[in-house]
Amino acid sequence: MFSNKIVKSLEKSSWIRAMFEEGARLAKEYGAENVYDYSIGNPYLEPPKEVMEALRKYTSDEVKGVHRYMSNAGYVDVREKLAAKISEESGINISPENIIMTVGAAGALNVTLKALLNEEEEVILFSPYFVEYGTYIDNVGGKAVVIPTEKETFEPDLKILEEAINKNTKAIIINSPNNPTGVIYKEDKLKAMEEVLKRKEKELGIKIYVISDEPYSKIVYDGVKIPAVLGIFENAIVVNSYSKSLGLAGERIGYIGVSSKIEDGEILVSALAYCNRTLGFVNAPGLFQKVIGDSLDAAIDVNEYKIRRDYLYENLTRLGFEIVKPEGAFYLFPKALIEDDVAFVRAAQKYNILLVPGSGFGCPGYFRMSYCVTMEMIEKSIPAFEKLVAEFK
Amino acid sequence: MFSNKIVKSLEKSSWIRAMFEEGARLAKEYGAENVYDYSIGNPYLEPPKEVMEALRKYTSDEVKGVHRYMSNAGYVDVREKLAAKISEESGINISPENIIMTVGAAGALNVTLKALLNEEEEVILFSPYFVEYGTYIDNVGGKAVVIPTEKETFEPDLKILEEAINKNTKAIIINSPNNPTGVIYKEDKLKAMEEVLKRKEKELGIKIYVISDEPYSKIVYDGVKIPAVLGIFENAIVVNSYSKSLGLAGERIGYIGVSSKIEDGEILVSALAYCNRTLGFVNAPGLFQKVIGDSLDAAIDVNEYKIRRDYLYENLTRLGFEIVKPEGAFYLFPKALIEDDVAFVRAAQKYNILLVPGSGFGCPGYFRMSYCVTMEMIEKSIPAFEKLVAEFK
Repeated sequence: MFSNKIVKSLEKSSWIRAMFEEGARLAKEYGAENVYDYSIGNPYLEPPKEVMEALRKYTSDEVKGVHRYMSNAGYVDVREKLAAKISEESGINISPENIIMTVGAAGALNVTLKALLNEEEEVILFSPYFVEYGTYIDNVGGKAVVIPTEKETFEPDLKILEEAINKNTKAIIINSPNNPTGVIYKEDKLKAMEEVLKRKEKELGIKIYVISDEPYSKIVYDGVKIPAVLGIFENAIVVNSYSKSLGLAGERIGYIGVSSKIEDGEILVSALAYCNRTLGFVNAPGLFQKVIGDSLDAAIDVNEYKIRRDYLYENLTRLGFEIVKPEGAFYLFPKALIEDDVAFVRAAQKYNILLVPGSGFGCPGYFRMSYCVTMEMIEKSIPAFEKLVAEFK
Repeated sequence: MFSNKIVKSLEKSSWIRAMFEEGARLAKEYGAENVYDYSIGNPYLEPPKEVMEALRKYTSDEVKGVHRYMSNAGYVDVREKLAAKISEESGINISPENIIMTVGAAGALNVTLKALLNEEEEVILFSPYFVEYGTYIDNVGGKAVVIPTEKETFEPDLKILEEAINKNTKAIIINSPNNPTGVIYKEDKLKAMEEVLKRKEKELGIKIYVISDEPYSKIVYDGVKIPAVLGIFENAIVVNSYSKSLGLAGERIGYIGVSSKIEDGEILVSALAYCNRTLGFVNAPGLFQKVIGDSLDAAIDVNEYKIRRDYLYENLTRLGFEIVKPEGAFYLFPKALIEDDVAFVRAAQKYNILLVPGSGFGCPGYFRMSYCVTMEMIEKSIPAFEKLVAEFK
């Protein structure tokens, strides 16, 4: 009656959102304070003061013309400031023309894939991966090719990557700091990856675009420096959002940055602005474009997340969980205590602990915990984890 | 190299946007005050005071949690208020569950089409029509079927509609007050249309959904009352935005309202929320959802537009243009003085008048003027129109 494909998808819809609904149900039954909801990456921190000040500045009666249509690519003054900031941070010069303001990173990814892909062309994903990537690729008629990462580090396995590339390969999506593992890809790994890509491009006579999804780029611990993807890959397209770094997940504000080294890049940039319009985004929300332009040096307090990572990592490893220690984002991706991650997550629900099974990220046998939650909830959850572990001993 | 289809589309990209760019070029060359830009529906009026007050309320430090993720369908409290308002205005009861907050009407349309259509299913459009409808339908693999309206009124021709419906017909899009004609479809016409749809549904064993795109529903003149589509069509899906009625075009805030009479409506509503997420919108911008919830009784001053309509209609008919007098929206759709509307629009550019050819709306021989511009510009443009008319006498 409606779209058959969509109705079918509803039945196996995202685990993450299913947990979100289950959390609401449990909270109603047991009280929110007795539910340990690690299911969704919904930052509880309020935006930093720079954001709040900019919001007040642009909503005063003195400021006019903020809420109207602008170019589909976004306000020029904001793109100028952002280009300067990206150039400064990456050491790679990027011009305002190469930036498209978008409706979050999810919008940016859909726009980018639409502009790049022809029917049946392939996009390589490294599992575990953010499961919606698959849907976005399908939206534009492309084909997702999922390959595993190295189990000890969750970093890409370049041998498997090289084997997966064929003449239909159009792009790869990388996501570092990673959701769901929190792992940061090392500079050497990315440089070696570029060598593989260049070799295969030459061999097959194709171009392979590296779409780097970086919403967690500001959430990094222990002084680790994120390698600048724009400096490493010739065909780099960076997509980003301020959902996590400025606590603006519900406002849908992000951008696409196109490397100036991409051949015919000016056509790609036009195609991106066109797709931003015709996919129905039209433009990134105007007020928040202006706010971002004034808040480029701001970030939520990462130390808040570091405290949570350390506390959870310590306690869960003490309880016997195997975890690759994350250096960024606000996720842990421990190994489940039994092979069947879905059964394990169901077991955790009995103790009011909400987790997401690794299967939801194309990586069975693990589970994801999102720790952008209160310290109080984390502390109260440890006894519940102890009971859960006891069940499997 | 990139998507072939998109790169091709770039070449014949929207006339409206092309004019927007040409306007910027002319303004640079001759000074903005000497360019008469009637090309784009970008409301120059600032949002009403209710909106500004709500913006300041929700951006104070006292209000927390506004900027986070919420349900993909939007904030429940906002949907409750909106449902009450729609029920009051239409006389038809609509529940909060049947409302999905969206990234503008463009987002709403893409989400609705994605949720409804299977490959190759058809959507009927009445020309002249907002040209992006065709692209939205193509985005989800559907097929646009464009049929003409009655030339004297620009209202749907029901005989042609009946002939166009076949077993692949899934939906029709109506848009009243209409872009580009400003015409409002009469209640009798819509009721007769529903009779046609019901007859064909029965005959062919199909369901036909009526997608009513209503962003101009608050911009109505001469005390005309807009018929409530939710009351007339069993399978009504209303999409709307606050771009025009509250001067928030750049903020991308709108909604979908699903008739409670639609069979299996709860599945459709879930499908819409799912598509809102997976097409990359995720949710409508959070702050503006809250602002809308507090501004449901507000509207920009329609009288400002009425003055412009009257002034332009009077002067242009005096100069010899044939125009169906619009009762809503902020567009005029006069007949061009020569058959070739594109040539006519090019001729107008010589006098620094920017128009959009009717061809851009699937209706050659006419042109669109958007009069959401300053009175000063309108007044100064009349001598330029006089010169243009003289050229064709």
